[in-house]
Amino acid sequence: MKNYKTLTPSDISHFEILCGKAYVTTDAEAFETYGSDETEDLHFKPEVVLKPRTAQEISQILTYCNQNLIPVTPRGGGTGLSGGALPVMGGVLLSMERFNRILEIDELNQQVITEPGVITQVLQETCIEKGLYYPPDPSSRGSCFIGGNLAENAGGPRAVKYGVTKDWVLGLEAVLPSGEIIHTGAHTLKSSTGYNLTQLLIGSEGTLAIITKVILKLIPYPDTSLSMLVPFYNETKACEAVSAIFRAGVTPSALEFMERAAIDWTLRFKPDINLQVPDNVKAHLLIECDGNDADYVMKQCETIFGVMEAFECGEILIAQTAAEKDSLWKLRRSVAEAVKSNSVYKEEDTVVPRYRLPELLASVKEIGNRYGFQSVCYGHAGDGNLHVNIIKGNLSDDFWENELPKAIREIFETCVKLGGTLSGEHGIGWVQKNYMDIAFSEKELDLQKGIKQVFDPNQILNPGKIFPNE
Amino acid sequence: MKNYKTLTPSDISHFEILCGKAYVTTDAEAFETYGSDETEDLHFKPEVVLKPRTAQEISQILTYCNQNLIPVTPRGGGTGLSGGALPVMGGVLLSMERFNRILEIDELNQQVITEPGVITQVLQETCIEKGLYYPPDPSSRGSCFIGGNLAENAGGPRAVKYGVTKDWVLGLEAVLPSGEIIHTGAHTLKSSTGYNLTQLLIGSEGTLAIITKVILKLIPYPDTSLSMLVPFYNETKACEAVSAIFRAGVTPSALEFMERAAIDWTLRFKPDINLQVPDNVKAHLLIECDGNDADYVMKQCETIFGVMEAFECGEILIAQTAAEKDSLWKLRRSVAEAVKSNSVYKEEDTVVPRYRLPELLASVKEIGNRYGFQSVCYGHAGDGNLHVNIIKGNLSDDFWENELPKAIREIFETCVKLGGTLSGEHGIGWVQKNYMDIAFSEKELDLQKGIKQVFDPNQILNPGKIFPNE
Repeated sequence: MKNYKTLTPSDISHFEILCGKAYVTTDAEAFETYGSDETEDLHFKPEVVLKPRTAQEISQILTYCNQNLIPVTPRGGGTGLSGGALPVMGGVLLSMERFNRILEIDELNQQVITEPGVITQVLQETCIEKGLYYPPDPSSRGSCFIGGNLAENAGGPRAVKYGVTKDWVLGLEAVLPSGEIIHTGAHTLKSSTGYNLTQLLIGSEGTLAIITKVILKLIPYPDTSLSMLVPFYNETKACEAVSAIFRAGVTPSALEFMERAAIDWTLRFKPDINLQVPDNVKAHLLIECDGNDADYVMKQCETIFGVMEAFECGEILIAQTAAEKDSLWKLRRSVAEAVKSNSVYKEEDTVVPRYRLPELLASVKEIGNRYGFQSVCYGHAGDGNLHVNIIKGNLSDDFWENELPKAIREIFETCVKLGGTLSGEHGIGWVQKNYMDIAFSEKELDLQKGIKQVFDPNQILNPGKIFPNE
Repeated sequence: MKNYKTLTPSDISHFEILCGKAYVTTDAEAFETYGSDETEDLHFKPEVVLKPRTAQEISQILTYCNQNLIPVTPRGGGTGLSGGALPVMGGVLLSMERFNRILEIDELNQQVITEPGVITQVLQETCIEKGLYYPPDPSSRGSCFIGGNLAENAGGPRAVKYGVTKDWVLGLEAVLPSGEIIHTGAHTLKSSTGYNLTQLLIGSEGTLAIITKVILKLIPYPDTSLSMLVPFYNETKACEAVSAIFRAGVTPSALEFMERAAIDWTLRFKPDINLQVPDNVKAHLLIECDGNDADYVMKQCETIFGVMEAFECGEILIAQTAAEKDSLWKLRRSVAEAVKSNSVYKEEDTVVPRYRLPELLASVKEIGNRYGFQSVCYGHAGDGNLHVNIIKGNLSDDFWENELPKAIREIFETCVKLGGTLSGEHGIGWVQKNYMDIAFSEKELDLQKGIKQVFDPNQILNPGKIFPNE
């Protein structure tokens, strides 16, 4: 670990000159807010919160921090689930909240150029006004920033049809720790021009450079959609049905799995959701098809109905009106909040090939039984991406700190054995870094550390993240 | 430039032990074959051709070459257009032709695991037999290898709807120059687990590692398609129509542009193609829509007909039968060969945002007039990817060697000014490397060289490629 500098009043004064006094904060309330994200109950205090407005300001901040060995942790909307935005080494918390302008919607080329501090849903809705669509929509889309989505390579329900954040990025502007401003990619749909630095920065969790501008591609907005909720008497059958839908030639725009416990917790948390779930229902699939053509969307749904007949499901609830759809999606989007409101928990973002989901689910439950913990599982079944929420409830702190990591290790080992990996869309950040050896050999980690060294030789950017034992 | 070792009989004997005598070649005929690819009239002799069969053999070869500073140039099908497979520093030519097995088509997860020496079309057709589809189809698909497609991040006509090679790769096995075998990615559709080494290797033109296994995602095969050929009286109008189609909410599965000269050269070269082109036609668009639903495909085509009415096009030729479609596509796929059969030429793989295509085309012609060369332009208009074939014809060798590079530099400067870059799908390789400074700042190039250094500190892998003046 580096011997980082502790900030002095003279450093703070210097930042005030760089950013303006109003955008340099050291008060306790700000440290409280900027010391947490949505990851568990973690809290790490920064030494100062900076809110720059331009790439040039960031360039000056980084140049100074790089020369003085001051850690810099970038932060977007603060909705991360792997602790990526936590200033675990203190130093500067670099909030990107003032990078909040959509710079240009280029309708002719179907692209948007945006600053990274724009809220994902705001970007989506602004594009929809022009008939254009940016599909990735993490559950936190109402408050997360595009920049954070890039940092963690965020997904969301629609990834199953439209891909994750990385699939929509054409180019970037970013500031290196040395203060230099670089550009990657181009305003083009294709490029075979040098190494793909764009894709290297995406998902690098703010450890290589600070992204200050983003070029995203857009598609025509699919203005028609149909959602349905399918109850199953057996979790395994629900998971198996997922693969069968794709094999029938349909690619739904969402295919979400919720086990019984996830539904029960959510209905208790949101009593205004009007849904009766018979006792013998063990899991639900929430399925959506979308497109520009109502007839074709309906045909796809009919194909799905046909597939479901083979899987012993209950009565399918179809949502056609906006209100009905909102209600179904509210159910799905509230699961995480419902779990969180009940107990301290840890969420693992497991991912496997989609057909292996039943095996993963069974394994998670078996490991839980063996170690003695409860889990609530739900997630993006179409992508084989299962969010495993492990509930603390009455478990002892000692178990939580010392035994549970062994169980989590077993869960991740199962993922890798099934052809999967550690994180589908949340990133490694702070909380998963000590499991990286399960997914990567020492050499594979060394290559990543070597790349880190090329971009950030003094290790000032988001230190303590991704790499184990650092 | 490194001081590479010249091979001795003792090195050759060592390779014979590693690969087996039958797979080590030093005869003149092999040097002729393996010293060229499809790039212009270039030829560089290797010192030995090796044809290993396993990752372990490659590991041993690379370990030896790394210790002895012997250059290693990997080669796929030899269809590259930027000289990426040319052994410009001599040494070992590593042919991947024996890595020709499709290892598994995983129908349940819609993935294929393949060795990199499989011909792209063979892979596609094998998948289609199972109802599954791997869309990227470079024009050379009948002879290019999947591994070469990865090395150059190849595209092809269907990229406009389905994306390029990089969008289909989930994970890789690759051998480092040190001999270590690494794995990147997973058998999953999503991953936010460490830096994206998969995307870093794709498009790195064999300069970082030798890919020995590939996990590709597949989709259900779209079994319906309609093609049409639209004549225009004005090239600019043809280019403008391209953008209008997307703005109408349709994403065709191909949208190809051919200027008049491209059609004329091709019809002379392939007299069996039965097409009468009136004198006043200046360009053609070849448009295809595909899908799983005939009604919906037809609707999309009808939307396109509606859009075309605003662009002063001639009578649209619609191909519905397989024979009719083949004839249209034969026209498009034969352009490069027709040009090549006529004259020495240089092909530039320019790419800009699609709406800027008319400006690019006009600029190419203006530069041509000023320098005094003819060009034949065609390509993937939906992606803004224009192949500019500069014809040598009667131009002097002196002009070709000394003046033309200045004109090409102007063309690339135009691309970058329009928001584009140097190569859409062919790669930088040997022939474009001295233009890299147009697209990248010194720092941006240094980052790429730094990454190269992490993977290949002795610079043995495909030396002389991508980076200028090396």
